[in-house]
Amino acid sequence: MLNFVYHTPTKVYFGKDEELNVGKIVAGFAPKKVLIHYGSQSARKSGLLDKVKKSLDNENIKYVELGGVKPNPELPLVKKGIELCLSEGVDFVLAVGGGSVIDSAKDIANGAANPETDVWDFSLKKCVPGKTLKKGAVLTLSAAGSEMSDSCVITNPETGEKMGYSCACNRMDFAIENPELTYTVSPYQTACGAVDIAMHTIERYFCPGEATYLTDAIAEAVIKSTIKAGNDCLADPNNYEARANMMWASSLAHNGLTQCGRSYMLTVHQFEHEVSGMYPEIAHGAGLAALWCSWARYVYSANISRWTQYAANVWNLDVDYEHPERTVEAAIDMQENYYKSIGMPTNLKALGVKEEDLEKLALNCTRNKTRELPGYKTLGYDDILSIYKMSYNAD
Amino acid sequence: MLNFVYHTPTKVYFGKDEELNVGKIVAGFAPKKVLIHYGSQSARKSGLLDKVKKSLDNENIKYVELGGVKPNPELPLVKKGIELCLSEGVDFVLAVGGGSVIDSAKDIANGAANPETDVWDFSLKKCVPGKTLKKGAVLTLSAAGSEMSDSCVITNPETGEKMGYSCACNRMDFAIENPELTYTVSPYQTACGAVDIAMHTIERYFCPGEATYLTDAIAEAVIKSTIKAGNDCLADPNNYEARANMMWASSLAHNGLTQCGRSYMLTVHQFEHEVSGMYPEIAHGAGLAALWCSWARYVYSANISRWTQYAANVWNLDVDYEHPERTVEAAIDMQENYYKSIGMPTNLKALGVKEEDLEKLALNCTRNKTRELPGYKTLGYDDILSIYKMSYNAD
Repeated sequence: MLNFVYHTPTKVYFGKDEELNVGKIVAGFAPKKVLIHYGSQSARKSGLLDKVKKSLDNENIKYVELGGVKPNPELPLVKKGIELCLSEGVDFVLAVGGGSVIDSAKDIANGAANPETDVWDFSLKKCVPGKTLKKGAVLTLSAAGSEMSDSCVITNPETGEKMGYSCACNRMDFAIENPELTYTVSPYQTACGAVDIAMHTIERYFCPGEATYLTDAIAEAVIKSTIKAGNDCLADPNNYEARANMMWASSLAHNGLTQCGRSYMLTVHQFEHEVSGMYPEIAHGAGLAALWCSWARYVYSANISRWTQYAANVWNLDVDYEHPERTVEAAIDMQENYYKSIGMPTNLKALGVKEEDLEKLALNCTRNKTRELPGYKTLGYDDILSIYKMSYNAD
Repeated sequence: MLNFVYHTPTKVYFGKDEELNVGKIVAGFAPKKVLIHYGSQSARKSGLLDKVKKSLDNENIKYVELGGVKPNPELPLVKKGIELCLSEGVDFVLAVGGGSVIDSAKDIANGAANPETDVWDFSLKKCVPGKTLKKGAVLTLSAAGSEMSDSCVITNPETGEKMGYSCACNRMDFAIENPELTYTVSPYQTACGAVDIAMHTIERYFCPGEATYLTDAIAEAVIKSTIKAGNDCLADPNNYEARANMMWASSLAHNGLTQCGRSYMLTVHQFEHEVSGMYPEIAHGAGLAALWCSWARYVYSANISRWTQYAANVWNLDVDYEHPERTVEAAIDMQENYYKSIGMPTNLKALGVKEEDLEKLALNCTRNKTRELPGYKTLGYDDILSIYKMSYNAD
């Protein structure tokens, strides 16, 4: 087990009607003024935004608003938010939405607290924010896990770069998680969320690190529960228990719990960020589903025992010890079939990626052949291009 | 799934040599003066106390010391600690030890921050501390989980009462967890720790609350990993991976993770607190082992499907759906045999409890027949006395 630091300070208020307490919770931070940050029209249309404002009004909390966050949140809106915070004296950022809104809110809070720094420099990892504004989230989508994570992914539309950075300042002070707020999430977005959640855990599971059987068993618990919750949410969008397990899995999958004692690199996420960076209309979860099985088939032989453990404990397969690769391939097939069954793509072609872009994707992913992706099998440019091609040509 | 609040702000520094960074970590809090709080002689003899002091010296941090914490930490030493903090201007409490030292440190920090309140009133739940001193722990024993929990259990030797209280102020700001520091823990104390850790999770598992399959699966992961780690630690006390899994399980079992969405009452702990309150020489884990199987046999029929789930997922039993009670009893027998195999008692007689004290224990546990213990089966005085008697007469 590798040494690790575990710190998940975000206070989670989980369950029915918890969003009605947002005013009281924010009042605990005694803010001068709040920025309410949200996405397109759904938070407004559903009435959630009104509920949030009423709750703040009840506590006499002043606020300004900034909507318009798009999936794959973009730098220009972040900069607009920072300017608004500075001009209005905002000292608290409240995200009302899913991972994109929360990531945008994190970047705004970091940028506004460090106005001397170009906020894009955080994404470029040129520097780390040393301070941030207080911030919280009312979660409306079970997927990215940003509500409890220390990561933030922003796209710069000028350069086409989609960059993630992780730091302590990216932790939300609180997250309000009412599963009922996800009843209206479409089947496609629900499936994308299930993929993203499971993938946050699966990716950590396949990072190097030995004898972490407690972490492994917790990861297996998260993966299996997410698969079950995904099926149940799709069968009945108003199944509270399914939505609740999905939402809680979203937070636990990405808050650090499932990486304790293991090294940490979300490899398939790196592949996917390039895809949805170049094709912004592609949902992150769908991109992950399209890529994962090809990555898995390319790398599993580098650590066959890890993969047979996965096959046995997640997919309940009996291990064929004479031909363990058969067990592993059966597990990958099962996962691929699961993706198909919930309406997810399992190849890049289905997502509209063009074959002539594959080399460019591999170049971007390796930062023009200047980086490799670590793991049980280290992946260089040729490997990465091979995986993109496999995924393009997969079923 | 019931609504819940989840908040585990304690920052954990886990792994080899992490205790050498204690000075730098404490310096981050810029304390005026630190109280180093520890137990008997083991922290001194092992050289750990010297390492801690040297690390503080390197950062020019001033400190005073107070040792002498006993298992089942007592109120008089807490009061002495509070006086020391007030007279010396201490604003940071550093616990070096296991759960008893950490609980004593928590109570000192709460008492010193609220000098107008009698600290015992917190234990009596007459009031809740609204503020506390900053505090951290260097953990030397995998058992109580106090390093990440919000609970604190103190004994008042004048009244014989052993009382626990839970509140946000009881969370440590940080915990340093180096599994190597537990290599010298005796087989008996190691086994007691394994019981205590598993029991923190098992007790939550059997609290009412439905459709928490993510929480359930995580709980099963913690229980099974603890059983494995317990066996491995006893087979080889210097097995780093076993000690590491045990230590991390200790923190996760009691930080709130395994109760999300379920009601919360550690019933068998209530039984045991009376036993080790009356017989202070009895180790908490040993008392739990002696009581649990009798409690289990008394209550399981109140929710047979919960118990068959436990039997299947923790003890890998095939459920006999015609006679599910056979499956449950087989699982309880397996747990009893596990306790025996690691040298734990499975009845109160073996612990030296006198038969004539059983009624007094039941009276104390019900606060003189003024409270019942909730759960799938509510337990009143007669039930509780029956369980004490079953446990007295068990194998």
